[in-house]
Amino acid sequence: MCESFEQLQQNLIKFTEERDWSQFHSPKNLAMALSVEVSELMEPFQWLTEEQSFNLNDDKLQAVSEEIADVQLYLIQLASKLNIDILKACELKMIKNAEKYPVNQSKGCAKKYNEF
Amino acid sequence: MCESFEQLQQNLIKFTEERDWSQFHSPKNLAMALSVEVSELMEPFQWLTEEQSFNLNDDKLQAVSEEIADVQLYLIQLASKLNIDILKACELKMIKNAEKYPVNQSKGCAKKYNEF
Amino acid sequence: MCESFEQLQQNLIKFTEERDWSQFHSPKNLAMALSVEVSELMEPFQWLTEEQSFNLNDDKLQAVSEEIADVQLYLIQLASKLNIDILKACELKMIKNAEKYPVNQSKGCAKKYNEF
Amino acid sequence: MCESFEQLQQNLIKFTEERDWSQFHSPKNLAMALSVEVSELMEPFQWLTEEQSFNLNDDKLQAVSEEIADVQLYLIQLASKLNIDILKACELKMIKNAEKYPVNQSKGCAKKYNEF
Repeated sequence: MCESFEQLQQNLIKFTEERDWSQFHSPKNLAMALSVEVSELMEPFQWLTEEQSFNLNDDKLQAVSEEIADVQLYLIQLASKLNIDILKACELKMIKNAEKYPVNQSKGCAKKYNEF
Repeated sequence: MCESFEQLQQNLIKFTEERDWSQFHSPKNLAMALSVEVSELMEPFQWLTEEQSFNLNDDKLQAVSEEIADVQLYLIQLASKLNIDILKACELKMIKNAEKYPVNQSKGCAKKYNEF
Repeated sequence: MCESFEQLQQNLIKFTEERDWSQFHSPKNLAMALSVEVSELMEPFQWLTEEQSFNLNDDKLQAVSEEIADVQLYLIQLASKLNIDILKACELKMIKNAEKYPVNQSKGCAKKYNEF
Repeated sequence: MCESFEQLQQNLIKFTEERDWSQFHSPKNLAMALSVEVSELMEPFQWLTEEQSFNLNDDKLQAVSEEIADVQLYLIQLASKLNIDILKACELKMIKNAEKYPVNQSKGCAKKYNEF
């Protein structure tokens, strides 16, 4: 059982080492694999309306759940190869986003920070 | 400070609520946004050799680190909208992957499970 | 001036040869570059409603037009590297699609052929 | 038979009209569909070395050829919805690229124009 994000990271690295897949896992290849998985995640949504996309049937929800996992697993592997701490990177990015998108300017507005 | 993945998830939801961005965040739109971010993450690798992709200079590594964060942040938001528990989904997917890719068949081999 | 698709293909190959870029243009790299360009094309649409996506302002339409060109140019280069005739491939695919999606079954329906 | 790019465009629009698919084909949705197809095109290359990517076996080459067609077909449909002339857009982009990447600066160099 994965009790935490850290535990998941360790289990995943062990999984890859046992299969000797490190040789294929250059950052370049992992970035490609990540992109392929994200498209598989996007695929069920492409012809849905936004409203429909909130109400997936059980089969589609299950498929989406597995694709979300695939994306997460490759993201962990890519970050690991580059010695990037995902949680720390997220924390720093959220600080940056809070500066780029102050509440009073961005409330209810989908503009990019450079379009204010 | 994000002390854990769970804390990060909560901080992110608060960030979005404060900006009233929920109206734009249909699962369909979040899946698109995730895909756009993944491509920004892939972009620095596109003309590098696999070997070069291990040795990014500091500027590129910093950029990649921010893009990894963006991907993680959108992934959390998409999962949250669909009430999917990312860590649980990863755990289940790893069990499935372990069955699809038994060590003795997949060691040192990049074939997909349906190509064995 | 590009008078035809064939002329465009020839001009593009000449452009690449003059810059000695063939060394970077492995099919793998061109596929990545194509994917990056498609995301840049998708980016302006991500927070728009479907209805809004029909009515881009002039700046966004110009940007989208350039991204469509980038996608087309990389697609030509990838096909060229693999000796694939794009027009012929499209023709064959359209015959296949007509068989997979007969008018009477697929009229007004967004289902995939394997969901009928 | 598609005798030309223009003929292909016309055949494709007729194909879509016959199936009454116009209702699903907002530019937003077509951009998503295009992105999904490009990832399917990228997928066979993800674990190959650059060298291997030049030498696909017949099955993979056939699959890649079909995916190239899918990308081209969606690109035509997206451009058509937005009244963008693909060949004209390519022509203009090549003029712009020639200015951004003069032969003497960019020969044998994969740097982006803003990295010179």
